[in-house]
Amino acid sequence: MTAKTVGVIGGMGPAATVEFLSRLVRATPAARDEDHLHVLVDCDPAIPSRTAAILEGGPSPAPRLCMIARGLERAGAQLLAMPCNTAHAYLDAIRAAVDIPVLDMVSEAAARAVVGPVGLLATEAAVRSGLYEKAFHERGIRILSPGAEDQEEVTRLIAAVKAGDRLEALRPRLQLVVSRLAREGARAVVIGCTEVSLLHDAGSSLPGIDALDCLVEATVREARREER
Amino acid sequence: MTAKTVGVIGGMGPAATVEFLSRLVRATPAARDEDHLHVLVDCDPAIPSRTAAILEGGPSPAPRLCMIARGLERAGAQLLAMPCNTAHAYLDAIRAAVDIPVLDMVSEAAARAVVGPVGLLATEAAVRSGLYEKAFHERGIRILSPGAEDQEEVTRLIAAVKAGDRLEALRPRLQLVVSRLAREGARAVVIGCTEVSLLHDAGSSLPGIDALDCLVEATVREARREER
Repeated sequence: MTAKTVGVIGGMGPAATVEFLSRLVRATPAARDEDHLHVLVDCDPAIPSRTAAILEGGPSPAPRLCMIARGLERAGAQLLAMPCNTAHAYLDAIRAAVDIPVLDMVSEAAARAVVGPVGLLATEAAVRSGLYEKAFHERGIRILSPGAEDQEEVTRLIAAVKAGDRLEALRPRLQLVVSRLAREGARAVVIGCTEVSLLHDAGSSLPGIDALDCLVEATVREARREER
Repeated sequence: MTAKTVGVIGGMGPAATVEFLSRLVRATPAARDEDHLHVLVDCDPAIPSRTAAILEGGPSPAPRLCMIARGLERAGAQLLAMPCNTAHAYLDAIRAAVDIPVLDMVSEAAARAVVGPVGLLATEAAVRSGLYEKAFHERGIRILSPGAEDQEEVTRLIAAVKAGDRLEALRPRLQLVVSRLAREGARAVVIGCTEVSLLHDAGSSLPGIDALDCLVEATVREARREER
């Protein structure tokens, strides 16, 4: 079977890109190097902040994201994946910029939810953009966002992961936010930020729908899908 | 400071490439996404086996490695790193194929050795190619290769890492090989295979010079070096 070459729009943040690649390697059925997917990665630290663009009217990351997508297509990618939830606010622009499919980690995550309401762990920009609310509402599932103080705590935790802080020290703080979402009625949490994917663990009081895992599975599925 | 864009010749194996990227992210002084290096990665599973080429006269990986190197240069890389020790047997060909510097993880490792003899943990192909012996002898340090049976065990361990076996189960087997190298007089071991980099740990009876770490440090150093 010839699998598609996967292009990865990366760098948001770099640790999340590495985590995506690590899970992709583990998720690919392979006994030898040759069984793995061909993956081209552009880990670009110069992509303008998605949060600054959405919350503060900063420069849009769309032109740079489209440039990276076109570069990956030119280099041979046949399918694109972008392991950053917030950047999915610009998915339509990226899809318009290339002739190859671009996976949507938000829809992939929404397709996993079977019961609601679902608590949302994401950047404030992703929450405000309504990305997750829209995708989940289309499936009849209500999204519960954390209260203002808890959202600030999630924002601080994401910044701490990006700064390279020890994950072990941060996990209990995330769990407090999850516990409060559970008390408000959440039946699960959607891990809608790749930095939070590094933090949410088995000790959580609610089951997690990890959008990063959903993207990994979609990548393997679509890359290995037989052409018709 | 404007850092150089780093191109990574990857996929040998994919897990080792991910480990390199993971260590690179951790080794880069950064508080925000924007402080990280711009990294382009080609994780190509179709590179012909280095071992088959060196030991069995199989097809040379050199043309494909050169093609990847040129593709990364074309995509904007200003410095290349190749996290696979055995593939360094083709370093001269790759250097001839591009106009940008290509780091040498073998020389970087040799530069760290202060006392010998040093045991070598590498593929049989890397051992037979004399890559490490040459680089260490130039610095007056003797290399001790494992005996035939131990080398076969190292080969099996490398294949098991590539196949995704649990690392915890493999580590004690590597430690037995290291202990025998110590009994033969080795004062340190050079971890000259990226799969072995995933296995060698703090419990080892000899200090390790990990060529993968040496490559990571060289990458950060050279990417961030001010132009003169």
